Amino acid sequence: MDAATPDRRLRLSEIHEHNRDSGSYWVYRGDRVYDITDWIPSHPGGDVILRAVGGSVEPYWNIFSIHQKQEVLDILEQYFIGKIDPRDLVDGRAPAGQIDDPFKSDPERDVGLKVLTPRPCNAETPTRDLASFITPDRTFYVRNHLWVPDLGKGEKHRLTIEMMDGSEVEYSVADLRDKFTAHTITATLQCSGNRRAHMTAGARQTNGLQWGVGGISNAEWTGVLLRDLLAAAGLPVDDPPDDVKHALFAGAEAYGASIPIEKATDRRGDVLLAYEMNGKPLSRDHGFPLRVIVPGHVAARSVKWVNKITLSGEESTSQWQRRDYKCFGPNEGKSPDWDAAVSIQEVPVQSAVTSVDEVYGLEEDAVVLQGYAFSGGGRRIVRVDVSPDNGKTWQQAQILENDAKGHKAWAWSHWRIAFAKHEVDKVFLVKAVDESYNTQPDSFEPHYNFKGNLTSGWHRVSAP
Amino acid sequence: MDAATPDRRLRLSEIHEHNRDSGSYWVYRGDRVYDITDWIPSHPGGDVILRAVGGSVEPYWNIFSIHQKQEVLDILEQYFIGKIDPRDLVDGRAPAGQIDDPFKSDPERDVGLKVLTPRPCNAETPTRDLASFITPDRTFYVRNHLWVPDLGKGEKHRLTIEMMDGSEVEYSVADLRDKFTAHTITATLQCSGNRRAHMTAGARQTNGLQWGVGGISNAEWTGVLLRDLLAAAGLPVDDPPDDVKHALFAGAEAYGASIPIEKATDRRGDVLLAYEMNGKPLSRDHGFPLRVIVPGHVAARSVKWVNKITLSGEESTSQWQRRDYKCFGPNEGKSPDWDAAVSIQEVPVQSAVTSVDEVYGLEEDAVVLQGYAFSGGGRRIVRVDVSPDNGKTWQQAQILENDAKGHKAWAWSHWRIAFAKHEVDKVFLVKAVDESYNTQPDSFEPHYNFKGNLTSGWHRVSAP
Repeated sequence: MDAATPDRRLRLSEIHEHNRDSGSYWVYRGDRVYDITDWIPSHPGGDVILRAVGGSVEPYWNIFSIHQKQEVLDILEQYFIGKIDPRDLVDGRAPAGQIDDPFKSDPERDVGLKVLTPRPCNAETPTRDLASFITPDRTFYVRNHLWVPDLGKGEKHRLTIEMMDGSEVEYSVADLRDKFTAHTITATLQCSGNRRAHMTAGARQTNGLQWGVGGISNAEWTGVLLRDLLAAAGLPVDDPPDDVKHALFAGAEAYGASIPIEKATDRRGDVLLAYEMNGKPLSRDHGFPLRVIVPGHVAARSVKWVNKITLSGEESTSQWQRRDYKCFGPNEGKSPDWDAAVSIQEVPVQSAVTSVDEVYGLEEDAVVLQGYAFSGGGRRIVRVDVSPDNGKTWQQAQILENDAKGHKAWAWSHWRIAFAKHEVDKVFLVKAVDESYNTQPDSFEPHYNFKGNLTSGWHRVSAP
Repeated sequence: MDAATPDRRLRLSEIHEHNRDSGSYWVYRGDRVYDITDWIPSHPGGDVILRAVGGSVEPYWNIFSIHQKQEVLDILEQYFIGKIDPRDLVDGRAPAGQIDDPFKSDPERDVGLKVLTPRPCNAETPTRDLASFITPDRTFYVRNHLWVPDLGKGEKHRLTIEMMDGSEVEYSVADLRDKFTAHTITATLQCSGNRRAHMTAGARQTNGLQWGVGGISNAEWTGVLLRDLLAAAGLPVDDPPDDVKHALFAGAEAYGASIPIEKATDRRGDVLLAYEMNGKPLSRDHGFPLRVIVPGHVAARSVKWVNKITLSGEESTSQWQRRDYKCFGPNEGKSPDWDAAVSIQEVPVQSAVTSVDEVYGLEEDAVVLQGYAFSGGGRRIVRVDVSPDNGKTWQQAQILENDAKGHKAWAWSHWRIAFAKHEVDKVFLVKAVDESYNTQPDSFEPHYNFKGNLTSGWHRVSAP
């Protein structure tokens, strides 16, 4: 390791040589260069750090926002070795073209998706496809936290299951297909940020991507039951030991999350390691060749490109488990008590209007509304109330039948209602009720959380 | 059977002789007398009809309100045999003293209970006892639909379990204690009408008893697991056959209800046949010698004085399953589509203020609020938000720790919060959030249901 010599000037070409194929690993941030070779074994996020070596940490730190605090900067400074040679800087920084693009191997996508951010890709399902019970693969909403890993044809991909005693079992996707019974369920995935834009509009600014009603989609998933895998690995799944509390999932791109062991082992919980979506192999954006599906829970637990399952007494330590996917009280500012809030698992009852159409009839003109309703935990939607006049009166929508597969109601319900034009007065409202008779809050401000997670206040749309 | 002779006049003393100890059974309604001997085997409610014979059906029909429709009157008229002799009538009716009192053997009760109706007894837990985590037996809220059966010392009481093939197993309470493992859980029971008075005040008139905040209590229950009983009777409890869909419960006083088989057999569902409450044998008002406890579900499914469990493909046909314990939309009048609404099982998230106390301090006067919060399905309460100023600002209450027993959070949480006097402005509001991040609706009118069931709009209380 080179000693810290503040006056040393390093060319970008030299930094690039200290990449993952070299024996010593350099990174830069701004114009400051660090040799992090000795730090790598201590990195809490594991090997993913190797993606950054030989270049800038900044595109990664923009994604892994957990780095953006003083204590991380202090650690990095311990490995300072010099500055980038001014001849290689433009406006004091390495030119963008010199910074490796983590997203360069992302797949091409359907142009119909409503893109919120291209890198990482976050995109809503287009309105027309929200009306179909099964969302087509190409327009299923995309919520990527990082780049899409390129796992080739998936033949080399392995799923490792690590038990509490450290013992491991490893499977290829072909093994999973061959050695375990396949199961198919119909499950809706919903981003915790779905409808966040409504909380911002109805209350105050929220952190995070401003999703409309399209951060939700529904598909048929085929794969093997996590319960079966854990049983084969030796866990007494009907009565796990008290110290086994969580199943942790890690994805090939470095994402991580966990679910309680009760859900992982529930006979009626239907947690899958899925290799097919809508009857075909998963597409790359949706986790090829293997992803977790945790039906009834927030989609953030349905880890894509999964390569490791670990049983543990603790939740995943990832920022997506301990930070991002939590809700706080309306009284809490942007430095809440992170640990006091519980990680989002099951989601609350939700509904939204996806289309408002004027229909010109022979007898009377009408307005037809369509939308979806969904609740977590497999709780079936039993009623959807729609007001054509900003809450003065309510009518019940027709809930459309579906042929969803699974032990519980893991799939959304579509609904439809028609109003005579004369009944309609300015603003439509919609709210749903699930089989536990939970319902949605009326408004946004009293339920404000600065992250805008799990927005579920009544959807309000203007009449045409 | 006597032929119908409209001019026949019958003395009350003669009618009284046609009681359950006789071979032929007469009843009267108003001044009209009926010989219902031939009808008894067809009575949908079973043998309970024998309680009325030899006297008036009216006190029973006031309880079993399902009789109050024309088709029932038409059936009764087929058995008309004459009128009561005018010498025995006062103002055209049999005198009240002549009508048997179904409640005459009801137990004595604590004078602290807030009585809504004495016969059948319906009474709220007094405010001071709502503040204790475990509600004392004597002031646990009472919700009786009928009379309290007098089952002596309980030695003759039997629990019969009827399987799908008609086979039966029968146990005494001593058998249950001796032959099965005892389990203790802490479970809150809540009447579906709890806080109904708030819906009436906040929206419109509702049918049913106008409960305040005291239609809820919490106790430790000890008994045997329904799952264990069903397993012993031969049901494969981990994977019941598809045709077994419900477990039906019947009580000795004629009440009946049912729960889905999934709850009945869930390893973590903790459904008990309880013989102890707070460490002592059940009291008569709470089901002595045996009652069902279905934690996380509406209390109407926790059948008292249970003497029969039946496995079935259908829900209980009782009015309490098919009618009374359902919710309807705000658009539905008093003749709703009864079958379209689902029976209440798990209850939604709920909270209420139980006391508001002014505290005079050395530095500043304060107001301390206490209350409870609870959610169905074993979903833990994770946050209680209280506004001291009618919703302008919110603060989080302290949720008190408890040592509830059971696989899930079946018990209420108590909470407490103090406001400086200057923060307080007119109206306090409270709302809770459970671990599925479901919350309570803001208001009442949009969630109005004419039965006033499952009222869960924010509790609003005036500041002192």
